[in-house]
Amino acid sequence: MPLTPEQTAEIDRLRAETTPTLRPTVPALEEMLYHPLPVLDHGFVRVIDYMGDDGAVVQAARVSYGRGTKRVSEDRGLINYLIRHRHTTPFEMCEIKYHVKLPIFVARQWIRHRTANVNEYSARYSILDNEFYLPARKHLAAQSEVNRQGRGDVLEGAEAERVLDLLREDALRNYDHYIEMLNEGAEGGKLRQDRSGLTRELARMNLTLNFYTQWYWKTDLHNLMHFLSLRADPHAQYEIRAFADVMLNTLDRWAPLTAQAFREHVMGGVRLSATALKVVRRMLAGEKVTQPDSGLQPREWRELTAVLELEAK
Amino acid sequence: MPLTPEQTAEIDRLRAETTPTLRPTVPALEEMLYHPLPVLDHGFVRVIDYMGDDGAVVQAARVSYGRGTKRVSEDRGLINYLIRHRHTTPFEMCEIKYHVKLPIFVARQWIRHRTANVNEYSARYSILDNEFYLPARKHLAAQSEVNRQGRGDVLEGAEAERVLDLLREDALRNYDHYIEMLNEGAEGGKLRQDRSGLTRELARMNLTLNFYTQWYWKTDLHNLMHFLSLRADPHAQYEIRAFADVMLNTLDRWAPLTAQAFREHVMGGVRLSATALKVVRRMLAGEKVTQPDSGLQPREWRELTAVLELEAK
Amino acid sequence: MPLTPEQTAEIDRLRAETTPTLRPTVPALEEMLYHPLPVLDHGFVRVIDYMGDDGAVVQAARVSYGRGTKRVSEDRGLINYLIRHRHTTPFEMCEIKYHVKLPIFVARQWIRHRTANVNEYSARYSILDNEFYLPARKHLAAQSEVNRQGRGDVLEGAEAERVLDLLREDALRNYDHYIEMLNEGAEGGKLRQDRSGLTRELARMNLTLNFYTQWYWKTDLHNLMHFLSLRADPHAQYEIRAFADVMLNTLDRWAPLTAQAFREHVMGGVRLSATALKVVRRMLAGEKVTQPDSGLQPREWRELTAVLELEAK
Amino acid sequence: MPLTPEQTAEIDRLRAETTPTLRPTVPALEEMLYHPLPVLDHGFVRVIDYMGDDGAVVQAARVSYGRGTKRVSEDRGLINYLIRHRHTTPFEMCEIKYHVKLPIFVARQWIRHRTANVNEYSARYSILDNEFYLPARKHLAAQSEVNRQGRGDVLEGAEAERVLDLLREDALRNYDHYIEMLNEGAEGGKLRQDRSGLTRELARMNLTLNFYTQWYWKTDLHNLMHFLSLRADPHAQYEIRAFADVMLNTLDRWAPLTAQAFREHVMGGVRLSATALKVVRRMLAGEKVTQPDSGLQPREWRELTAVLELEAK
Repeated sequence: MPLTPEQTAEIDRLRAETTPTLRPTVPALEEMLYHPLPVLDHGFVRVIDYMGDDGAVVQAARVSYGRGTKRVSEDRGLINYLIRHRHTTPFEMCEIKYHVKLPIFVARQWIRHRTANVNEYSARYSILDNEFYLPARKHLAAQSEVNRQGRGDVLEGAEAERVLDLLREDALRNYDHYIEMLNEGAEGGKLRQDRSGLTRELARMNLTLNFYTQWYWKTDLHNLMHFLSLRADPHAQYEIRAFADVMLNTLDRWAPLTAQAFREHVMGGVRLSATALKVVRRMLAGEKVTQPDSGLQPREWRELTAVLELEAK
Repeated sequence: MPLTPEQTAEIDRLRAETTPTLRPTVPALEEMLYHPLPVLDHGFVRVIDYMGDDGAVVQAARVSYGRGTKRVSEDRGLINYLIRHRHTTPFEMCEIKYHVKLPIFVARQWIRHRTANVNEYSARYSILDNEFYLPARKHLAAQSEVNRQGRGDVLEGAEAERVLDLLREDALRNYDHYIEMLNEGAEGGKLRQDRSGLTRELARMNLTLNFYTQWYWKTDLHNLMHFLSLRADPHAQYEIRAFADVMLNTLDRWAPLTAQAFREHVMGGVRLSATALKVVRRMLAGEKVTQPDSGLQPREWRELTAVLELEAK
Repeated sequence: MPLTPEQTAEIDRLRAETTPTLRPTVPALEEMLYHPLPVLDHGFVRVIDYMGDDGAVVQAARVSYGRGTKRVSEDRGLINYLIRHRHTTPFEMCEIKYHVKLPIFVARQWIRHRTANVNEYSARYSILDNEFYLPARKHLAAQSEVNRQGRGDVLEGAEAERVLDLLREDALRNYDHYIEMLNEGAEGGKLRQDRSGLTRELARMNLTLNFYTQWYWKTDLHNLMHFLSLRADPHAQYEIRAFADVMLNTLDRWAPLTAQAFREHVMGGVRLSATALKVVRRMLAGEKVTQPDSGLQPREWRELTAVLELEAK
Repeated sequence: MPLTPEQTAEIDRLRAETTPTLRPTVPALEEMLYHPLPVLDHGFVRVIDYMGDDGAVVQAARVSYGRGTKRVSEDRGLINYLIRHRHTTPFEMCEIKYHVKLPIFVARQWIRHRTANVNEYSARYSILDNEFYLPARKHLAAQSEVNRQGRGDVLEGAEAERVLDLLREDALRNYDHYIEMLNEGAEGGKLRQDRSGLTRELARMNLTLNFYTQWYWKTDLHNLMHFLSLRADPHAQYEIRAFADVMLNTLDRWAPLTAQAFREHVMGGVRLSATALKVVRRMLAGEKVTQPDSGLQPREWRELTAVLELEAK
């Protein structure tokens, strides 16, 4: 993720000068504004702009003429109430904009969240940098045997070595060929006068899915929480979770009351089905319930006993 | 639209204190931030918050590390290019939030724009004020005879008087009954101890569609322009156009380069159909074209000759 | 809700003739296609069209070349899995279209669901019928004393009489004046030759919020369930719940496996916060937990003990 | 694009049996339902399902109890009117669902259209086939010299050969390594017992962007036209245009009146800016206008004279 000196200078310039504003401002977030927060081997998340704060949620919920906020304890109570009862629209009144550098295969998962605004770096128009993702050793996992969509043990020894060699060599070779096909003399590539060079919009197809792209991504506070609830979740692929975890930290700074309510009611909470709820009621009434007489499928039973921290029998 | 002293004081409080920010700031918009801009007889538009400016459009289009802006002439050229070629995503990177007070029948048209965020004052929860819209004399129009969805001449004399009397008396009476049914002693209503009072969520149904409601409404720059292109248009009902016109002025302040390109290419521009384009080409080649041999329907022909400022023959 | 003979004839015509199709077809839903299902005093819900079925959910989840369905038990298992793990996109592959007649104040709540398509009867263009909602006696509730957004006891005797009289008389009078102002001789109104008539787009503002409007409303299966989870919920206002309940029945016919999973995991389920989950774990481990040492607010504690069917102490 | 015998059999099964329905049916579209329409070297578009037709547009615009359609000429007139005046909501009442097989770099452009529903084949869950896009010779273009986002002349001779060799060899090699890393014995790959195999969600990152993926993609008629207006346009990259062109043909079959109006007013039409409109008016009034006194930028002037089929001077 080392930025070029020019990029660092641009960021320094942005951070050098403040202007006065009448808008709500969040000092804890301003502290990190524009700074790249590193993710994976070459990626980052930068907070570029934001609008609103916890107070703006309260203000919209009350449709007030002023800030709308009262004492912190009342605001916290209201925000908790809104999240618990799925009153989502007041959280849509805040907006945040990120600049993200991420591998293409992560971008393909991320873009499925449609209630957001995106401007991606265009490889039709520009030439991509020679940067690709290589997993750290500890993330080089085997296919899970129980979950077709998950990871198992970490690869070891020669196999790990071989996998990393293949990923690295193929990415490097494909990038070299990309530059050769472009024939623009870019990235130190040799420029041959007897060739025209392939158009950029075609040459890019030779790159592998671990190459880094970047985009501006903007969403509102409600949809950010929805994104995080799915992508900062243990079921999400590690590589996108790494981004979501960093963004969860930016949420803590930006809107701490909302972040707390979100962690309490959504991230840390659990949903019980109608049948699971009946099981819990029977257990609390002193009944001994087993899977066969629970009405739950074996898999559901395992998940329930795990979440309740019961010995599964 | 006279605000209560408490409301005015709240706004003054908001305007009394600036904080420093690293975010892009638009002084011309800050000047009017929080101030109510009057619309119709009791309505208003207030800019509550904003995010981004012309520079943010450029920054997103370039996916840059810094502001992304260059010389004003280059930025203007790029913004013009984006609007002309319908590259809409960079304009989604800016966001604006309004507080609007508007008649319910206007709110019902407005809400059809779905790509926006809304928090409306809840008459399930609170009691509405005794404020309703009465058209000014010059807007009291007859039904158009040529356009089933438009206005004709202004009503005159006794008829105008009668219409205004009916609208006023019915609104006043229905509001009195609303307060009576609520039986909360609100708005100077008599509180009867032998009554329970009808629940607010039902009592509100006795109000007429010209009563004022209010909401926080937030959208991005692209969708704001889309809204304005439809609602600041002569085909829009006058009452919603009155709001759109005021918002168009806030756009001029907020993002002047974008506003200029929008007026040039969208508001002031015109769309020609394939057949109309052929007609123009023939005319420019010196041919004399008449409706019957134009391939256009009579109505389309009239619209085309009007837009080209030709004598319709 | 009595339809005119013309309307009934139109519906009969639609139901008289089938055509063969290669598309998936749901006989249980075809049975009620086009028929108005009565809601409230003058409203209805009509299923107008649909696309897909339970099988289409499975097909999309598997991205298959054929139907994608296997044995019913496997399909049921997959659909349950998708709902439990919030894989919502396969449910977006089915679509349903309703024609709904509903009071305006209900329409104003309903329209807040933005991920849907709507075409409403235009009172700018046409004249509304003289039909308005009057609550049945048993729904004429007082304001709740504990919930500012809910209903309390039913009004009785003279108060109920008075409320119904006011609602009825005001609606009738306002409608008469609406017709008078229009001066089109509509609905038996007297046509005065010395008057022009107020334009429809203005005259409508004299109507009260309990007048009926109608619209075509179309959404996908995922967003239908989201709508139902909020509007067929006991916290929703009775009048919109009456519509949602009828639509829930159409869901049972349309996609029975999905409907079952939805009732099990969403409608009949419950969300526990992180703290509530800890409380349940402690209780199941045999600990005696009280509100003060639960970490829950009194209100949250009451809700939790209610949901667990414990004696609140 | 050769389907496997199993896939062909599944499609034949779907096409073998019709069921009667009361819904509107479009025989011209049923004729091609489920059949793969070939695009590029291995891609296809299959119409999987649809809802509504031209009549459903009319029905929604009229909010009618029956079909709502009258004589064809009246329906055509109404549909033309709706498109000319940007009344888009009636077109949202029809829905179409496609199964598409397409290169990943095309999918990345396509997915930017957010008002659609998508289920993509998951390479986290399954193994991708060994199919990748190689441009036909005539589409192997050089970078445009005038348009940074376009194509110039076709590459020739040795350069074309070299580009195709690189693309083919890199794709083949990367796929072999993908299979090797998976170590599942898939696609004829050797299964080594001393290896665990890399998890699928990581192995896929070694594939290049020209590999084919597939998805179910569903949208409404309005958003389909918006998609086509941008992607069946000469400015779109050839590879996505190839898909859009095929889909434009499905539109012709599905909703011929709408398709005709769309071609007349959108695809074949042109937008003039305020200044361009003034120029045309001056020209039609007999004035000789040149670029310097037109008020247009040189580029705008060139575009205008081209569209008007004037000699640019």
